[in-house]
Amino acid sequence: MKATDPQPMAASNPAAAGGLQTVTIALGERSYPIHIGAGLIRDPASFEAVPRSALAVVVSNTTVAPLYAEALMRSLRQRHRQVELIVLPDGEAHKDWPTLQTLFDGLLRLGADRKTVLYALGGGVVGDMTGFAAASYMRGIAFVQVPTTLLAQVDSSVGGKTGINHPLGKNMIGAFHQPVAVVADLELLATLPPRELAAGLAEVVKYGPIHDAGFLGWIEEHIDALRARDPAALAQAVRRSCEIKAAVVGADERESGLRAILNFGHTFGHAIEAGLGYGEWLHGEAVGCGMVMASALSARLGLLGESDAQRVARLVARAGLPVRGPLLGADRYLELMRVDKKAEAGEIRFVLLERLGQALVRSAPDKTVRGVIDAHCG
Amino acid sequence: MKATDPQPMAASNPAAAGGLQTVTIALGERSYPIHIGAGLIRDPASFEAVPRSALAVVVSNTTVAPLYAEALMRSLRQRHRQVELIVLPDGEAHKDWPTLQTLFDGLLRLGADRKTVLYALGGGVVGDMTGFAAASYMRGIAFVQVPTTLLAQVDSSVGGKTGINHPLGKNMIGAFHQPVAVVADLELLATLPPRELAAGLAEVVKYGPIHDAGFLGWIEEHIDALRARDPAALAQAVRRSCEIKAAVVGADERESGLRAILNFGHTFGHAIEAGLGYGEWLHGEAVGCGMVMASALSARLGLLGESDAQRVARLVARAGLPVRGPLLGADRYLELMRVDKKAEAGEIRFVLLERLGQALVRSAPDKTVRGVIDAHCG
Repeated sequence: MKATDPQPMAASNPAAAGGLQTVTIALGERSYPIHIGAGLIRDPASFEAVPRSALAVVVSNTTVAPLYAEALMRSLRQRHRQVELIVLPDGEAHKDWPTLQTLFDGLLRLGADRKTVLYALGGGVVGDMTGFAAASYMRGIAFVQVPTTLLAQVDSSVGGKTGINHPLGKNMIGAFHQPVAVVADLELLATLPPRELAAGLAEVVKYGPIHDAGFLGWIEEHIDALRARDPAALAQAVRRSCEIKAAVVGADERESGLRAILNFGHTFGHAIEAGLGYGEWLHGEAVGCGMVMASALSARLGLLGESDAQRVARLVARAGLPVRGPLLGADRYLELMRVDKKAEAGEIRFVLLERLGQALVRSAPDKTVRGVIDAHCG
Repeated sequence: MKATDPQPMAASNPAAAGGLQTVTIALGERSYPIHIGAGLIRDPASFEAVPRSALAVVVSNTTVAPLYAEALMRSLRQRHRQVELIVLPDGEAHKDWPTLQTLFDGLLRLGADRKTVLYALGGGVVGDMTGFAAASYMRGIAFVQVPTTLLAQVDSSVGGKTGINHPLGKNMIGAFHQPVAVVADLELLATLPPRELAAGLAEVVKYGPIHDAGFLGWIEEHIDALRARDPAALAQAVRRSCEIKAAVVGADERESGLRAILNFGHTFGHAIEAGLGYGEWLHGEAVGCGMVMASALSARLGLLGESDAQRVARLVARAGLPVRGPLLGADRYLELMRVDKKAEAGEIRFVLLERLGQALVRSAPDKTVRGVIDAHCG
């Protein structure tokens, strides 16, 4: 009856050669590996954790499929007698029921059964939809995440959240459904547009301030290498992000408690996205700017040193992300934040920093919030 | 990743007064009670296991809502500040995505959040759809089953299966999602059409031959009382059916093994339903006739005594169910059974009896199956 989202624990095993790293998400019998490295989709060994079903279906979108579907399918033919491809339209606008229905139609036409394995080859939208299709096709089949964006590699790999949007709300319909494996191939990031790379870095940066000051320092040292898509730096960033997310999710299976700190930057960020209309700013851009504002709010409330808040802002800027919000007016910001899913009885719950590496969730006086908005927007 | 359908164990606690009986389905932290008795929906105490959320939404259909929604809602107002009603169209034809979408629309318009509790007031269709809505709304909220048909009381109360149909297949999209409570009010059966009562009795009868010869004897003794809707007899029938289903499901969490015996009568039954077009015969009617044919097949294969097969047939007849199948021809029967979800690589898997109270799953020579069809159809 309750949303089951069991408590993962992460264990890492950096391989000696080739830079391949593996993070194991420990969930009892639903444990799964996250493999991180360059060129993984071309190596059949990357998929050893996946059951050898007769049929595999790769689900991708019109942008990613032409680039990578063939290479992936070639590897999968060593595990599955029949490997098929279903291509969805690209974009958040298609993360909806009609598109999911075409996916179900395709699975039924292909004769997919309870043993069929789905492979999600794409960003967050493909991952969320394929995961939800896997969760609900014949009441649950296996799926593998092959994330092709940095955001999906660090964010969707852990937590098991799947779903689609409803006209009246984002991610309103979905399930918790764990993949049997995640294969994060860093080579796939080569074709990622720079804006999307920066948006992914926002979620990487996030894990420093909320949980690990040492990782924050590491990102500061390697931010240029990350923007240059250096595979070793990317591997380390993805690995550590997945580890931290697993640790935070593992300490709090429900979203009400500690897990909420993963939403650092998201309260201001969602107001920016909703205020401008979704799609105007990328989610990661809004979160980047939101982290700057949340850090500033933490400083104004006397929780965080002013210089530490500026340190976050500087790193967000160096990641190629905006540090000033759009001029919506403080009233509009407050109104949008009050209707956020995370608000409780109209009281806005902010994820704030009490020091770098340590977050907490609390409310703040409207006046102080207004001061931050006025200083950081427009 | 795998369909999680944890192993329930049942424990019964027949109350001294008033005939209230409770079967507890033991699923660790997802354990829930099945309360069985007359007049339960009018008693707020029936819902004590349900969280006291601010909002409750009763989901029903156009046939049941006018009869029972008001009484249920009156009881629920003692547990929930706000109690709302969503009425779906009646019938299996509406167990589809568009109808589910109207349910999601309604929940969002009512401001349902993660703590909202859904109450499924209806038969199997309402229960399956409400359960799937609860499984996927905001990735999972609590729901209560208030089954209003005998079939739903004995069949849907245990197992956690929820879902909707797809144009290309029944129950193709769904989830395993356990209710927080089941309230089986025997008074609600008073308005059930006789055909539907008999169809529900088919599933009750089923539990005897497959698992409990003693229960089979008890049903034989009480079949007239059951058809007369005697509350004490119905309570016992529902209780024992739920216990047996819980025991069988508990011994085999996947559907491939022992659990398959719950499909006794369903292989022939599905062929009847599909061959005539769904809706022509009620599911329980087809299962009743299917049990007669499966028993006859068991006898022809030398597994079961001929007199025992006739004992099953006599009870099915006394329950008011058909014992002869429609004349589709043996070829058509075989063809329909071969495409059944439970067939493996075209080989039909029959649930057969090796004695009354003991079932097994195996294939059978086409020639023997044809003999049974020719003898029992038309």
